[in-house]
Amino acid sequence: MAAAELTAHQLIAQHRPTLDQALEAIRTRAYWSPHPEHPKAYGENGSLGMAEGKAAFDALLGTRLDLGQPGTDDWVGGEASPYGIELGITYPHADIDVLLPAMRAGQRAWRDAGAETRAVVCLEILKRISARTHEFAHAVMHTSGQAFMMAFQAGGPHAQDRALEAVAYAYVEQVRTPDTAEWTKPQGKREPVALNKQFTPVPRGIALLVGCNTFPTWNGYPGLFASLATGNAVLVKPHPRAVLPLALTVQVARQVLAEAGFDPNLVALAAERPSEGIAKTLAMRPEIRIIDYTGSTAFGDWLENNARQAQVFTEKAGVNTVIVESTDDYKGMLSNLAFSLSLYSGQMCTTPQNLLIPRDGIRTEEGPKSYDEVVADLAKSVGGLLGDDARANALLGAIVNPDVKARLEAASGLGEVALASREIHNPEFPDAVVRTPVIVKLDGAKPDAEAAYMSECFGPVSFAVAVDSAAHAVELLRRTISEKGAMTVGAYTTSEEVDQSVREACLEECAQLSLNLTGGVYVNQTAAFSDFHGSGGNPAANSALCDGAFVANRFRVVEVRREA
Amino acid sequence: MAAAELTAHQLIAQHRPTLDQALEAIRTRAYWSPHPEHPKAYGENGSLGMAEGKAAFDALLGTRLDLGQPGTDDWVGGEASPYGIELGITYPHADIDVLLPAMRAGQRAWRDAGAETRAVVCLEILKRISARTHEFAHAVMHTSGQAFMMAFQAGGPHAQDRALEAVAYAYVEQVRTPDTAEWTKPQGKREPVALNKQFTPVPRGIALLVGCNTFPTWNGYPGLFASLATGNAVLVKPHPRAVLPLALTVQVARQVLAEAGFDPNLVALAAERPSEGIAKTLAMRPEIRIIDYTGSTAFGDWLENNARQAQVFTEKAGVNTVIVESTDDYKGMLSNLAFSLSLYSGQMCTTPQNLLIPRDGIRTEEGPKSYDEVVADLAKSVGGLLGDDARANALLGAIVNPDVKARLEAASGLGEVALASREIHNPEFPDAVVRTPVIVKLDGAKPDAEAAYMSECFGPVSFAVAVDSAAHAVELLRRTISEKGAMTVGAYTTSEEVDQSVREACLEECAQLSLNLTGGVYVNQTAAFSDFHGSGGNPAANSALCDGAFVANRFRVVEVRREA
Repeated sequence: MAAAELTAHQLIAQHRPTLDQALEAIRTRAYWSPHPEHPKAYGENGSLGMAEGKAAFDALLGTRLDLGQPGTDDWVGGEASPYGIELGITYPHADIDVLLPAMRAGQRAWRDAGAETRAVVCLEILKRISARTHEFAHAVMHTSGQAFMMAFQAGGPHAQDRALEAVAYAYVEQVRTPDTAEWTKPQGKREPVALNKQFTPVPRGIALLVGCNTFPTWNGYPGLFASLATGNAVLVKPHPRAVLPLALTVQVARQVLAEAGFDPNLVALAAERPSEGIAKTLAMRPEIRIIDYTGSTAFGDWLENNARQAQVFTEKAGVNTVIVESTDDYKGMLSNLAFSLSLYSGQMCTTPQNLLIPRDGIRTEEGPKSYDEVVADLAKSVGGLLGDDARANALLGAIVNPDVKARLEAASGLGEVALASREIHNPEFPDAVVRTPVIVKLDGAKPDAEAAYMSECFGPVSFAVAVDSAAHAVELLRRTISEKGAMTVGAYTTSEEVDQSVREACLEECAQLSLNLTGGVYVNQTAAFSDFHGSGGNPAANSALCDGAFVANRFRVVEVRREA
Repeated sequence: MAAAELTAHQLIAQHRPTLDQALEAIRTRAYWSPHPEHPKAYGENGSLGMAEGKAAFDALLGTRLDLGQPGTDDWVGGEASPYGIELGITYPHADIDVLLPAMRAGQRAWRDAGAETRAVVCLEILKRISARTHEFAHAVMHTSGQAFMMAFQAGGPHAQDRALEAVAYAYVEQVRTPDTAEWTKPQGKREPVALNKQFTPVPRGIALLVGCNTFPTWNGYPGLFASLATGNAVLVKPHPRAVLPLALTVQVARQVLAEAGFDPNLVALAAERPSEGIAKTLAMRPEIRIIDYTGSTAFGDWLENNARQAQVFTEKAGVNTVIVESTDDYKGMLSNLAFSLSLYSGQMCTTPQNLLIPRDGIRTEEGPKSYDEVVADLAKSVGGLLGDDARANALLGAIVNPDVKARLEAASGLGEVALASREIHNPEFPDAVVRTPVIVKLDGAKPDAEAAYMSECFGPVSFAVAVDSAAHAVELLRRTISEKGAMTVGAYTTSEEVDQSVREACLEECAQLSLNLTGGVYVNQTAAFSDFHGSGGNPAANSALCDGAFVANRFRVVEVRREA
């Protein structure tokens, strides 16, 4: 291999301050991000501006994205944007019997580079991705159906934050054990015994990232970067509808690895033919020792039960609950909830589904509100938020796939419709399927309603569930978390007693709780370096972004000791 | 509950300095231990001296050990010492439908106590155990068959060290996330958004410790204390042949918990009737969310594959290899190996089994030695070490159970016997089964020999395997680790090339390596706070003692956030 264009020394000098800030942020969990959220912050210092990003994306359409991978036996593609355009991009299809061995070839050098060099190489990859944030924004928008601004932020800086957070956790976990130790044990009057010890973090093998349709970068980056930073090669198997964002990521990673003198095959893409379903095949390969997955409960459970040779990290489905018991800011509550239900057409794993509201109504600073009033006011609030088509398009994005559309259409048959879904025309992308959320009333005391609200109905569907009391709501919350899992829980209450019992339910059932959000923070959003995404302790996910458990078992430490 | 006799404040004042030293030790991995190794160090400051410890043990014989547990439906026992005496002690047999719910009752208070209080309560338990080290030594001796000095050290201070190490890892893992954070995100010209966040480490549920016969405390304490320190209740299911050491541990833990104002049922014992096999039943209970196990590969694999509701930490069986390629201290090598093969009759999971020796002989500072000479000299060295019956008894201890004896007896049929096993009379315990190790010669090039050396033959059996070359030895080492697993690897070489290739094999196959040990440290010994026991990366064990991965997933962190 040619001499590295980027030396470890240069990379450390450039990125170590950022790494140190990230380490401090995960320790204090105060606000921090090195990745600007505003689109106008880009366009200088080598980053693509708005027009350049769009042009770069347009230039990709209809092309073959050749990553220079070994074992490429075909070119596959077929992504159709939820906004109605064909991407027409093809990607390498791998002969995995060629690709997997090639991915192992560079692992020794990557291992020997050590934790700090791996971390700064990862940071260089993120810097290059950050510079192309505008291009990635279009890639995420046209695969996930997110509206541009959300695709830009969640698919760009927020995803990069989650990646950097994972690199920080991975780094600190590896350096908890020193590289060397001198061990001298006293022996009373005899000479002490003394050993020299060397400790080396070693990778598990090849990691597999199974990407998702809705948040290909945000949900994909933590596992990808945690595995790479801990010395593993990473094979990226994107969702067939959302290949481009991860393919570009792989492209950048390969470029940086090569420039830094490492084997680019440490990161590779495994795109698939329609209905090929290669995730199962890959997941069962003995070379695959780590799997990160975001998606359906069924396949997540399958991976956990079958890929026993691997450490399996899953984010599956849950049923998210918001308890509405009382508030001293009724309008703030309604507008906060309306936004949470509308953002990306409710296609977030963190979107509330079940709104538990006492059938006798709630207390507010405006006086008591009946169950019907609360539901009607919430419907009005959603309607107002999405009344203007331009704003609706900017908030809702597009329905990601026909399954979500079908679920939305079926939802109105589940109960009394409090707010009907409405079609929105997108003037820029007339073929985009844009829909406002539906709110359906259900009676929590009726067993036949339970089938609806106790199942995940992914998409812009929420249930206003009438409950007997706050205690009934908390009991239903507990049961929902323990049986179905939850990525998020919300509650509105001014009662210290209810506040306490909801908190206790979340502590015991292990779910992340947002209380009385009425301003510009929403239950479905989490910030890297501060908020945990998922708890890893209920059926919705077996891991959390990000913590020690997410990284600690991606590598092992081998000790070599000899007499001093 | 009555007011606590021990306040958290008192316990912190007393134990925090020790915790801080442990935290520093796991960071530097230099030598440290707060638990004296010498029997004469005990007997003052409230600890039992030699005679008192013996008397305390004798007083237990033939009694009922009533732990005051709820749901006790019977009294069971039947331990027979490998030294030939009946212990005659009975223990509570639990109705688990009563005991498990009772164990959950105290979890909330234990969770709310926080990481530091849990850590110092654990340290108080260890202090009380340490004070009874002489009593525990007899309990370990008469269940494991270890000789007294080994039972004293490995079952006492070394086990206590491993426990404290686990508490230190558990503590530091929990406090990586602060209790609270103030998060303020700038919003350009608008007011920043601000959240108050609370983070609480929450337990997974009830942890199950499945104890082993040979090292009930040393192998049992890390999981027990890691689970307890992270907020979980712990149910201890001892090996039916080694109940007493863990029953006493449970007794002490319950006393300390009660005195500190916590529910003693946070730690409980589940003894079983002969052949009842309750480990399987317990392991599948939904309340059990963590399992620690040391024992056979078959049951370890069963737990990993079936107890899917739990985090399962296993130490199973491996095949440990020592490569003998060359040395500049021939006598030191022989005596070091002889000791490793003899200690506790080879009944350690870390005892070398396969000695790989080139058929063309090895280089030494005394000149070349043929394969036959090396094997004969090693046999002589073992013979010399164990030539004196008193010393042999002190080193070998007793054969722990009839299975080991049967394997030892069968081993001489596997090949040419280089050193025959010898019966040793133990004058103090005439019924003890005491045997010296057997060394059997095998040809590593012959496929029919492979069945022997590629299987674990637990007990005082080792194979002197003739190999074609150093390269052949390394290839066999790699294959043994990857197919059978290894708790330890040793190598003797003066060649930088061989040194390098053995190290690379251990880094790639993930096994802990000791090089050229000729003095008073042995390949089968690891020291807490410094050495890793197992790697967690090969089939012998899925975890290592102790590291972040051993503790990080025993709890989860629940976040509660609200607007500031």
